[in-house]
Amino acid sequence: MMETGETRIPDTTDARVLDTDRIPLLEAATVDGRARVVIEGVKPEVDGGRFPAKRSVGEQVQVEANIFCDGHDVIRGMLCHRPAGEAAWRETPMQPLGNDRWRASFEVDTIGAYEYTLVAWIDRFLTWRHDLARREDAQDIAVAMLVGAELVEAAAARAIGTAAGRLLDHAARLRSATTPAASREVGQDEELALLMAAYGERHHASWYDKVLALTVDPKWARFSAWYEMFPRSCLAEDADHGNFSECERRLPYIAEMGFDVLYLPPIHPIGDAFRKGPNNALTITAGDPGSPWAIGAADGGHKAVHAELGSLDDFRRLVLRARDYGIEVAMDIAFQCAPDHPYVREHPSWFRWRPDGTVQYAENPPKKYQDIYPFDFENEEWLELWLELKSIFDFWLDQGVRIFRVDNPHTKPFPMWQWLISEVKRTHPETIFLAEAFTRPRIMHRLAKLGFTQSYTYFAWRNTKQELVDYFSELTWDDSREYFRPNLWPNTPDILTEFLQYGGRPAFMLRVALAATLGANYGIYGPAYELMEHEARDAGGEEYLDSEKYQVRRWDLDRSGSLKDYIARLNRIRKENTALQSDWNLRFHAIDNDMLLCYSKSGAVDAEGASTIVVVANLDPHNAQSGWIELPLDDLGVDAARPYQAHDLLSGARFLWQGPRNFVRLEPQASPVHILRLRRRLRSERDFDYFL
Amino acid sequence: MMETGETRIPDTTDARVLDTDRIPLLEAATVDGRARVVIEGVKPEVDGGRFPAKRSVGEQVQVEANIFCDGHDVIRGMLCHRPAGEAAWRETPMQPLGNDRWRASFEVDTIGAYEYTLVAWIDRFLTWRHDLARREDAQDIAVAMLVGAELVEAAAARAIGTAAGRLLDHAARLRSATTPAASREVGQDEELALLMAAYGERHHASWYDKVLALTVDPKWARFSAWYEMFPRSCLAEDADHGNFSECERRLPYIAEMGFDVLYLPPIHPIGDAFRKGPNNALTITAGDPGSPWAIGAADGGHKAVHAELGSLDDFRRLVLRARDYGIEVAMDIAFQCAPDHPYVREHPSWFRWRPDGTVQYAENPPKKYQDIYPFDFENEEWLELWLELKSIFDFWLDQGVRIFRVDNPHTKPFPMWQWLISEVKRTHPETIFLAEAFTRPRIMHRLAKLGFTQSYTYFAWRNTKQELVDYFSELTWDDSREYFRPNLWPNTPDILTEFLQYGGRPAFMLRVALAATLGANYGIYGPAYELMEHEARDAGGEEYLDSEKYQVRRWDLDRSGSLKDYIARLNRIRKENTALQSDWNLRFHAIDNDMLLCYSKSGAVDAEGASTIVVVANLDPHNAQSGWIELPLDDLGVDAARPYQAHDLLSGARFLWQGPRNFVRLEPQASPVHILRLRRRLRSERDFDYFL
Repeated sequence: MMETGETRIPDTTDARVLDTDRIPLLEAATVDGRARVVIEGVKPEVDGGRFPAKRSVGEQVQVEANIFCDGHDVIRGMLCHRPAGEAAWRETPMQPLGNDRWRASFEVDTIGAYEYTLVAWIDRFLTWRHDLARREDAQDIAVAMLVGAELVEAAAARAIGTAAGRLLDHAARLRSATTPAASREVGQDEELALLMAAYGERHHASWYDKVLALTVDPKWARFSAWYEMFPRSCLAEDADHGNFSECERRLPYIAEMGFDVLYLPPIHPIGDAFRKGPNNALTITAGDPGSPWAIGAADGGHKAVHAELGSLDDFRRLVLRARDYGIEVAMDIAFQCAPDHPYVREHPSWFRWRPDGTVQYAENPPKKYQDIYPFDFENEEWLELWLELKSIFDFWLDQGVRIFRVDNPHTKPFPMWQWLISEVKRTHPETIFLAEAFTRPRIMHRLAKLGFTQSYTYFAWRNTKQELVDYFSELTWDDSREYFRPNLWPNTPDILTEFLQYGGRPAFMLRVALAATLGANYGIYGPAYELMEHEARDAGGEEYLDSEKYQVRRWDLDRSGSLKDYIARLNRIRKENTALQSDWNLRFHAIDNDMLLCYSKSGAVDAEGASTIVVVANLDPHNAQSGWIELPLDDLGVDAARPYQAHDLLSGARFLWQGPRNFVRLEPQASPVHILRLRRRLRSERDFDYFL
Repeated sequence: MMETGETRIPDTTDARVLDTDRIPLLEAATVDGRARVVIEGVKPEVDGGRFPAKRSVGEQVQVEANIFCDGHDVIRGMLCHRPAGEAAWRETPMQPLGNDRWRASFEVDTIGAYEYTLVAWIDRFLTWRHDLARREDAQDIAVAMLVGAELVEAAAARAIGTAAGRLLDHAARLRSATTPAASREVGQDEELALLMAAYGERHHASWYDKVLALTVDPKWARFSAWYEMFPRSCLAEDADHGNFSECERRLPYIAEMGFDVLYLPPIHPIGDAFRKGPNNALTITAGDPGSPWAIGAADGGHKAVHAELGSLDDFRRLVLRARDYGIEVAMDIAFQCAPDHPYVREHPSWFRWRPDGTVQYAENPPKKYQDIYPFDFENEEWLELWLELKSIFDFWLDQGVRIFRVDNPHTKPFPMWQWLISEVKRTHPETIFLAEAFTRPRIMHRLAKLGFTQSYTYFAWRNTKQELVDYFSELTWDDSREYFRPNLWPNTPDILTEFLQYGGRPAFMLRVALAATLGANYGIYGPAYELMEHEARDAGGEEYLDSEKYQVRRWDLDRSGSLKDYIARLNRIRKENTALQSDWNLRFHAIDNDMLLCYSKSGAVDAEGASTIVVVANLDPHNAQSGWIELPLDDLGVDAARPYQAHDLLSGARFLWQGPRNFVRLEPQASPVHILRLRRRLRSERDFDYFL
């Protein structure tokens, strides 16, 4: 079979024009009504092909389609794929799955845009071969041999090299076969079939009428652990404001915990006008540092660095030093301005002016945010504004940043994001955009379709078993997974959930373990998380008391009881088990206690013959819970007839299990979660250490 | 609100171009990046808008879409619709359903093609009004009044007639309001809101990027009862071959049973070569009439009439006489030829020739059908062939036929059907095409998408409760219902199911009642059905013994035990209850016996206050079965606190029921099915006859 090869670019006059609503008779004469194969129902195809699907480098792209034709002829189909910009298609043969569904896969090995489409045709030779095997009448078979010889001779005329001669030999054998048995034998020759697959004509081929797009992102897009930290709280002992140098000192701490991405809230000059005080106070006292999201002051805006944090050089050095630790620095991009941002003076047209001569500040009546001026994206110079905003990304890309967390993207126009992200990725396809949008579901999905690499989710507010099963079934199995990559955060500077406020240490252990194992991408806001900061500003609210958003905090990283080591263990388990490095392999399993959640992920078989991770979590932070789990051992590749080991990678405990039903008990203060590696028996039973 | 009106044709430069994968910077300047509203997820939309959805005349077309924008602005949206060919859109305002889903409906009142699309925009006035109601700060409100006045004055400049003056009055009131309370009051004025809805500008409107198509068919496409009959078996007493005149005599019989469509197998000259004898015998004796599907002989092909049936005039008279009885004659179109069809001689290029100089007959090795020559749709003159095949429809349309049952459409190219049907419907939009395809599901669905008005289904082979519930849930609720209109046949000349062979009279009563109530379109092949013909040719097969396909049959229509009256009652019930005249209102209900099936349909409330039909069917033709049904009375509009009547329209029995759970028992020999009209109590309890 032809595995790869060059074919012409799809010509839409092949099959597509006939599918329009009405074809004038004369026009029909200019298209090929003989393209009898139908290709439809292609997956992945996001919104009818309007948006690209997403994969990360090294992944398989499995494409399915309905392919069929009228009558009983035998069809062949090819998945055609290429990095965007290449002229030639690479081809992978489609395989039938039954019920007219076909499938093929290809691996994406470079970061950037790919394209794929499908072509299929009626294979006259295979149809002839299939019929020949079933023919019984001698005269019929004799005629069939002549038909077959003509097909083979036509292929010989197209063949190159020795193939042409071999084909002519086969044709001669077809023509000279005398008995039905001999005829059938020469007709079923395997070499002949291979040669015909290579040189048989693709008569009246039907191309799928769309070329579909695929975005291939770096590995981090699929598998990453984020750590969010306010640089100004990285304090020297005698200082009252942190800086990038102190951030560098913090790198070993973050690396020991096993994080891949260090995400910093905005590092730009902070506005003075209407600056907020501690706990969002409307009045400030001297020295109050303000919110980093109130961007822009006399000494600069989105392309400047807050002077107390250091210089641009200091920042660049932090980025490079972090990379030495295997950590990528992610920046926060918040497209909004403090009243003293230079843009307000330099580009007054980018803001909405009220009839009283003041700039329209952000508001959601009766709430007023006078420290923030939103851009007016409907202003006449909107394109100039778009170009400037894109140049902010360009600027930080030039400083070495590759990952951006975008603040509130749902309050900026969707068309801008699509344009901006695709423009950035055209020159920097390795860029990762994380959409910070905790808004309505369709809006979050639209942002993901438009190009955001990863998306915040509702994970923080999914606590019960039913909520978790429903939500992760959607994230994992719905068609939306083709474009929506979840990034799970148990907390953020804006979100201290009730569960964490009141659940104590078990709640913190549980939620980070869920995030780290339910999702291949997750993050925490620290050190608040590992130090289990849990006091809220207002009862019933989710704001932190003494939030770092408005003040500098001095954290005691060595405080006893820190979850630092626990989180380090989680991240090590993630790195050592491929099962935890993707989202689509998640499966929930039955367990007879609504406070216990059980799920598994299977990955590549590791050096020890293990591939499956089973997680059992006690969702109740207050009480020990126990129950019987039920695992589909066949699907997990475990021999149901023999005992096997469930090795808790968190606690080190090893449980000897047998059969699908096994008992678990989780004491939340000790460890609310089992992360179990199932170890299959590999040696003889006489060996003492018979588990690998 | 503006209910209808003229708007410009969608200009794709509005919002769509920005959605392409990559926009060169310069090009972005030519489009409007300020169109901030997103429209997506439109339903109905068949295969991404590639095929039209279907409705019948008088139906509502309910269109839904996700509509949202960035931020918190208030959106307005319009469903735009028009008969194809009209320039102006008619508009219906979209209503929000929550979760960013919107809906509007329009009625289609003429047969033919329609188009629809959507437009939405940010309504600055409504956004202003919404915010104003929530503002608390006096200074804010004062500024807001100035902003509002500017919006109203701009609308006044666009307004016509007295509206302009009224708007200016409102603007003046806005400018002169002094207190916050007075300001809010003049801002919330209802007349102002109405005027602004009519004259407020549609700033940066987003059009949905597709104009979607809709096919509106005649009422019969939605609701029809078909009767298939071989005209050659309509025999005069002394004749051995029937004719159209005798068919005319049969019309009162068919009309009394209540059928709307009389469908005749092919009426063309029957080939002599390889003619088949009774029971598909390969040899014949003189006088054997052959199969009507072996079309074409010396005296003509697809545009001729078999001489023994009468003349073309006789046929036309039959069509007209049938119409007097409210019956439409449907023809069978089978695109295949007997070896002596004139096409073979006149257009040899339309057939595939074998190297031995013979024409390739139909075959599915090892089976051979030497009496049938299929067309070779891959021949060089394929377009000429398409045109000739279309002219066959044109010819019979000219004879007054409006309904065609197409034989084996899945063995002819899909592109041809799409072209042919759309071409026919362009001049004859009232034409109905029924696809006879009992093949793989995706192929049947493709044919329906391509334009077939109705489709045969797998109903004949769905017998158990689970099979029926699963299959009709799919037909009724899947998105495919937008294009796939089922027509249910308990038997055909090719299909005598095992259930009918062995189930006796109860099986015949059950299956026709299921067909007539589960589907708005159904048909039977008679008189075999009403006379309960049940002997198969071969054990394990579905062919009728002494099938009319190969011989003339003399039926005794007055045979005692005929189901004629039972079927007449079924069809009368269908006509008297709108609930049974559509497919989408089907709901299954719980019943605690796997041999009993319960479902309901609700329609328009009739003169007696009843609207719901509940069907209970005993699927076991051999034994009486009983059980408790459970009805969702609230959904059915029945007062659960009072008794109500379940009136069996088949038997006349009236059951007094109360509450959701009620007992039923069905004795199959007497009546395997209840068709119950739920009658709500309308008069006082003191009246004797208190049920309507």
